Amino acid sequence: MRPSIVLFGDSITEEAFGEGGWGAHLANHYSRSADVVLRGYSGYNTRWAAMVAARAVVAGAAGVAAPPAAVTVCFGANDASLPGRASALQHVPLPEYRDNLRAICALLAAAWPSVVVILITPPPVHDAARVRYQYGGDCAGLPERTNESAGAYARACVEVAAECGLRVIDIWSKMQRFPGWESSFLRVVFEEVVFALKDASLGLEALPADLPLFCDMDPNNPVKSFDE
Amino acid sequence: MRPSIVLFGDSITEEAFGEGGWGAHLANHYSRSADVVLRGYSGYNTRWAAMVAARAVVAGAAGVAAPPAAVTVCFGANDASLPGRASALQHVPLPEYRDNLRAICALLAAAWPSVVVILITPPPVHDAARVRYQYGGDCAGLPERTNESAGAYARACVEVAAECGLRVIDIWSKMQRFPGWESSFLRVVFEEVVFALKDASLGLEALPADLPLFCDMDPNNPVKSFDE
Repeated sequence: MRPSIVLFGDSITEEAFGEGGWGAHLANHYSRSADVVLRGYSGYNTRWAAMVAARAVVAGAAGVAAPPAAVTVCFGANDASLPGRASALQHVPLPEYRDNLRAICALLAAAWPSVVVILITPPPVHDAARVRYQYGGDCAGLPERTNESAGAYARACVEVAAECGLRVIDIWSKMQRFPGWESSFLRVVFEEVVFALKDASLGLEALPADLPLFCDMDPNNPVKSFDE
Repeated sequence: MRPSIVLFGDSITEEAFGEGGWGAHLANHYSRSADVVLRGYSGYNTRWAAMVAARAVVAGAAGVAAPPAAVTVCFGANDASLPGRASALQHVPLPEYRDNLRAICALLAAAWPSVVVILITPPPVHDAARVRYQYGGDCAGLPERTNESAGAYARACVEVAAECGLRVIDIWSKMQRFPGWESSFLRVVFEEVVFALKDASLGLEALPADLPLFCDMDPNNPVKSFDE
């Protein structure tokens, strides 16, 4: 009945329903017209995501019966972890990152030919904070990921999107345009996803509510509005 | 693959993904193990809910392929609107409210024999605020709903649950136990729903993550954890 929008990604997706999160905003935005299905896997890189995409999204979100209308794909923050540093386990070399993204997109397109795939780049890294709060064992106080590295993966993501003819949200660039982005709550992701969905003719105005709004009911005969 | 939890109700449900909302908290709580499916219809009473339940929940949430594990049913706030006042259109007499709730629960049980149905009573009404901020035309400044009336519907909801052997969350009573409930963000609903789901063996500890957590991966062979 309602179309669904699947959010597939790493912790930026898994945590999207936390306080002020972009997934919660999206579910609220589409509260009467589309289901937002969460498939977020903290810590995952594209190597692992490509391995599980068929299970997590194609079979998994087809806990949803109909093909989803859209899937957001947001990976790269973990791939961009520096080799030889504390998060080396998550590192994926840039050429493989591109290949994995391509494989994920090809899988989605094969499963659901009409699905709208929206790539989302990794977000910027707040270098100073990353040094201050070390992740998982410090390796001589060196940061395990940097904004520069995240930027390289973001550019690769944008290039893969162009090559595959897909929409892309470059949050690495967009977030850094906002003063204070280091402590923002990814509200910009919500706004950009809504914009991309609208661009794909999946805006709120294109998705009718599945049942009449109370304000549209005939006060003299409210029940009439349920006639099919 | 993942079980789903359907939230069926009026505006308390439709707005559950708003800032600090109980639905968003629930989706976040179950982010790796269950889907939270929103079926909230602002302004609806049980008369209309009973009419559309088959479409909205049984056919609709079976945009979800498998039967949901649980459904929360939260109606009554609109039914309790006073007859002859500004929201009379939404009023449903108490005996009919009981019948409608029974019909909704019977429908869910017939469609999905093993589904866990959790009734949620209407919340308390902040009488002073309700007089101050009149809803839809004032009818001589008289409130269109009162805490007393909401309480009567809450008690009826608790009774129907007992009669049908269903779990119930009496938020009318529970919320009033918290000082400052009038301006609270229904966090208590989240906590109570989590408690009821746990009681129905649908707690977080009973629902395995559908894919390995990053922290559980073997650092020497992360890919091994995806073996089926």
